[in-house]
Amino acid sequence: METLLLNKDDVDENTPMAELISAIEDAFAAYETGDAQMPAKSYIDLPQYNGDFRSMPAYMDAGDWDAAGIKWVNVHPDNPEDHDLPTVMGTMVYSDPETAFPLALMDGTELTMKRTGAAAAVATDHLAVEDATSFGVVGAGVQAYTQLEAISEVRDIEEVVVSDVNDDAVAEYVDHFSARFDVRAGSISEAGHCDILSTVTPVEDPIVSADDLADHTHVNAMGADAEGKHELADEILLAGKLVIDDHAQTTHSGEINVPYHDGTLTDDDIDAEIGQIVTGKADGRTDDDGVTVFDSTGLAIQDVAAAHVVYEHADDHDNGYEFDLLGV
Amino acid sequence: METLLLNKDDVDENTPMAELISAIEDAFAAYETGDAQMPAKSYIDLPQYNGDFRSMPAYMDAGDWDAAGIKWVNVHPDNPEDHDLPTVMGTMVYSDPETAFPLALMDGTELTMKRTGAAAAVATDHLAVEDATSFGVVGAGVQAYTQLEAISEVRDIEEVVVSDVNDDAVAEYVDHFSARFDVRAGSISEAGHCDILSTVTPVEDPIVSADDLADHTHVNAMGADAEGKHELADEILLAGKLVIDDHAQTTHSGEINVPYHDGTLTDDDIDAEIGQIVTGKADGRTDDDGVTVFDSTGLAIQDVAAAHVVYEHADDHDNGYEFDLLGV
Repeated sequence: METLLLNKDDVDENTPMAELISAIEDAFAAYETGDAQMPAKSYIDLPQYNGDFRSMPAYMDAGDWDAAGIKWVNVHPDNPEDHDLPTVMGTMVYSDPETAFPLALMDGTELTMKRTGAAAAVATDHLAVEDATSFGVVGAGVQAYTQLEAISEVRDIEEVVVSDVNDDAVAEYVDHFSARFDVRAGSISEAGHCDILSTVTPVEDPIVSADDLADHTHVNAMGADAEGKHELADEILLAGKLVIDDHAQTTHSGEINVPYHDGTLTDDDIDAEIGQIVTGKADGRTDDDGVTVFDSTGLAIQDVAAAHVVYEHADDHDNGYEFDLLGV
Repeated sequence: METLLLNKDDVDENTPMAELISAIEDAFAAYETGDAQMPAKSYIDLPQYNGDFRSMPAYMDAGDWDAAGIKWVNVHPDNPEDHDLPTVMGTMVYSDPETAFPLALMDGTELTMKRTGAAAAVATDHLAVEDATSFGVVGAGVQAYTQLEAISEVRDIEEVVVSDVNDDAVAEYVDHFSARFDVRAGSISEAGHCDILSTVTPVEDPIVSADDLADHTHVNAMGADAEGKHELADEILLAGKLVIDDHAQTTHSGEINVPYHDGTLTDDDIDAEIGQIVTGKADGRTDDDGVTVFDSTGLAIQDVAAAHVVYEHADDHDNGYEFDLLGV
């Protein structure tokens, strides 16, 4: 029996974004309704290499389908300079829950970017104004691309403003999307005055202030993934409608982790988990809402849902490379 | 940069057993000296499929080399009957600790059998009588083969007795090893009167009584890997010199888990962890010892150590299939 190997390009080419967004919404719903299992991420810290490994196993049952797997992923910030390798690399094992046979092994790095964009799109669909047409992004790195690719599936985006201290990265982003959108470089404030803003930076001192946003901007805070990271001024988090992906993860390492630990922000300031919104237990945007914020840390169930979409698409189209790993 | 794919046969052919035994001893030592990291196994229970998944990440530093990786493995007892698949299947991701690049993806099932045999050999080397020449095995399933392959590396085994209720399994085992050893079918008591006994069954009611053993038999209790499993009479565990691989795992799901939970066996009855013995902090067999018992549950560091040996051997000999998974 053969296991399907899906490299970076295969993952890219076998991710129909609309289907992925739907699957990520299913994952948030399954987590909310108790139809998912997601043991806490476990870490292996290697200070001697300034890096760490994280294991992210999960199972989810979406009703029509279910999926299981594990992503093994790292953060090694010295990789680009010292080894000409990315800071983050992931490997995903996607398994049949019924038998546990490993159906596919796939590049977990590309998968992470896709599912992170799709998570922002799910939140945007529920929290941005219905007639949103403008999208801003602060940070023009690799994660910035799937933000626009995914969000443009749920809103009719026409205008895009990209802000980054790295001019080359901005130019590359503009060039990449100029055929499809009215895209230009701009300040953080110009990006923040779009209908939708995604922040995808690794900063530890907030770079977006309340004045940088329009009164109805929906913000996807995607950058924070470790203790101490913090992109948005506390004022935004306290005054806006605040939606998180997971309480344990966001208070530990998400956008809210710093003000949560110093007591500036408490559980009373958290309006909902995204799973409550997609299942209708909590409201998405209402007429009373101004700024809305989605604090996304990235959940293992998203990886499993994304792997399901990629595997099914690749299998249907005879893509990927079949390999008899287990000899069964 | 390419990731090496190693299937079942590749793992089998790239495991020099003497090197593996040495690496497993290094793993036990690193765990004892604090030079290993092994987060608790995390489980995903799927009662609807009568199965579970386990994730086993680890890192170890043996001094001359270090290694990191994760094994994703399952137990689905209905697989053989319902799906013509093994109960247990494993996938191993082996990574460079310095950069986290996935150096290899390999069959974790074959790897598990190899490292389990090697663990028994390490314990046997320290706990069996020096001039041991006879080996008994209770249970003639897949794990029984690597027990003999590994143990015959550390003692000059001549005579082998195999005991199982399944006559076909016994005949197959005899046939497999008859060219190398004086091997025959026998009762549990005949197997237990060898110098070394390995038990590799999934039973929950002890099948080996104190009378079944010689006064100096070293027993490798390999079968228990879940709550309720129990191969040896409590009398053996209480009277013998009892060595475990890990306190948390053995008291939870090892050979001692049943008497430990009912209070028959306490921490006072545990003589040492194997890591204490291989590092010289506790004695192996002494002249005062009679029956000795090694309770092995299998540690994630063993998988990582084994993956290191397999990868290095395959890489040196240009074995395996190179695949550009990550596109970096």
